[in-house]
Amino acid sequence: MRRNLCLTIGYDGTAYSGFQSQPSGNTVQDMLESSIRMLTGVPTHVTGAGRTDAGVHARKMAVNFYTESRIPVERWAVALNTRLPQDIVVHSAHEVSEQFHARRHALRKTYRYTINCCKFPDLFRRKYEFHHPTPLDIEAMQASLQYLIGEHDFSSFTSPLSTKPHHVRTLFEAKLVAESSSDEIAAQLEAADLLRYPGKSRGVYHLYVTGSGFLYQMVRIIVGTILQVGEGKRPPEEIAAILAARNRAKAGPTAVPHGLTLWDIEYGDNL
Amino acid sequence: MRRNLCLTIGYDGTAYSGFQSQPSGNTVQDMLESSIRMLTGVPTHVTGAGRTDAGVHARKMAVNFYTESRIPVERWAVALNTRLPQDIVVHSAHEVSEQFHARRHALRKTYRYTINCCKFPDLFRRKYEFHHPTPLDIEAMQASLQYLIGEHDFSSFTSPLSTKPHHVRTLFEAKLVAESSSDEIAAQLEAADLLRYPGKSRGVYHLYVTGSGFLYQMVRIIVGTILQVGEGKRPPEEIAAILAARNRAKAGPTAVPHGLTLWDIEYGDNL
Repeated sequence: MRRNLCLTIGYDGTAYSGFQSQPSGNTVQDMLESSIRMLTGVPTHVTGAGRTDAGVHARKMAVNFYTESRIPVERWAVALNTRLPQDIVVHSAHEVSEQFHARRHALRKTYRYTINCCKFPDLFRRKYEFHHPTPLDIEAMQASLQYLIGEHDFSSFTSPLSTKPHHVRTLFEAKLVAESSSDEIAAQLEAADLLRYPGKSRGVYHLYVTGSGFLYQMVRIIVGTILQVGEGKRPPEEIAAILAARNRAKAGPTAVPHGLTLWDIEYGDNL
Repeated sequence: MRRNLCLTIGYDGTAYSGFQSQPSGNTVQDMLESSIRMLTGVPTHVTGAGRTDAGVHARKMAVNFYTESRIPVERWAVALNTRLPQDIVVHSAHEVSEQFHARRHALRKTYRYTINCCKFPDLFRRKYEFHHPTPLDIEAMQASLQYLIGEHDFSSFTSPLSTKPHHVRTLFEAKLVAESSSDEIAAQLEAADLLRYPGKSRGVYHLYVTGSGFLYQMVRIIVGTILQVGEGKRPPEEIAAILAARNRAKAGPTAVPHGLTLWDIEYGDNL
């Protein structure tokens, strides 16, 4: 009997050419498909909830695929994890309705972009954070994000290589959050001369953006632009004019991929 | 004028054959020495505060070396970091007295060993945590640590390859700490089915051990032994008998190196 299975997965994107299958074969989708084939013996196509670029990570991504395999659904995660490389993990498997489609039925996606403003990179998180060793005006960056909330034509914030027919998307939320650490950890970091800013923050900021969907390179261009605000190169209110221009050349550069993580996908009652 | 400089450094040990120089050249000491030579043009020997094994990390390690270079002390960290690979970072440089010796003058060292009891490994910390997917009796492990505090002959807890003439060392402190995460993060993890234990803990435990000095593989053998206590294979009080036996065969296995990090070194007024 053919079943439709949905997997939630995570991956460290450092070693991969992105999520979506490519002739090189070095993608997360290729790894998933080959592990499913190893398990079931049948070539299987998986549908991802979205694409992530080369070097971008996922804490929670979803995929679905059809299978005739009789393996009980609760066994899939462990069975695939033993066949996957260590930088891809299946967290759960669910049987879903015949119609469920991991991309079309996703209601909200959240991406996180991490900026480390400490003097030196964090050795143990260097592959997941963008290191920006000079101070940023965090309040100005916060202010600039307000112009992006809501429904807008995000043509200024997508690559000219975008293949989408229209660029109107809705951003539900965008917030820049200082990573807090306990007093004890902050004191240790200060003692070891590892803390850039005094107080509880270790100088690491996470930008969380939640929307209905995202265009090609959209989050990274948003980050590259608000970093210019944080550096004092643009006033926060210029974001409104950049949006209105619908011209990629008006926005800032595309931030490096390794600071970006697909953080969450929500499906509501579909899953 | 010859100066004695002390550097505090950190490294991700994943790619290295340990701290101490080897003919292969693939050690942290070799990398430091070659970066100093690149900077000053002079072959330089660095003295480390201790050795860490292949695959073991350091959040804070110290080294000292003598140099005739006139580069101001405040420039050394940045100058060396531009010449070092990304997995080794110099955090600070200080001029110290002619007699200062990074190993002999270290008063206390703290190691941290991290055990992740979640169902699946943490993708983004998998190189710095030992993954133990079945539950552990944390209270029994806490209880077992009390037998190790104080001055003891740690022969049972060192490799037969130890080259030290005697095995008496003092452990000042040994504590197992559950990593706490904010309510928000815990709720997110729970929603994403990533949380193994309910409550605030994400199921990750850090063992911190602080002592005057450590024997070869001592922390890893302590961890391998208390893991057996946590698994219910030994009662906590057996630790006293293992210590008294002064026989490596009585203790548990040597835990994998990648969970271990040299966390701190203290010098008192010497630095």
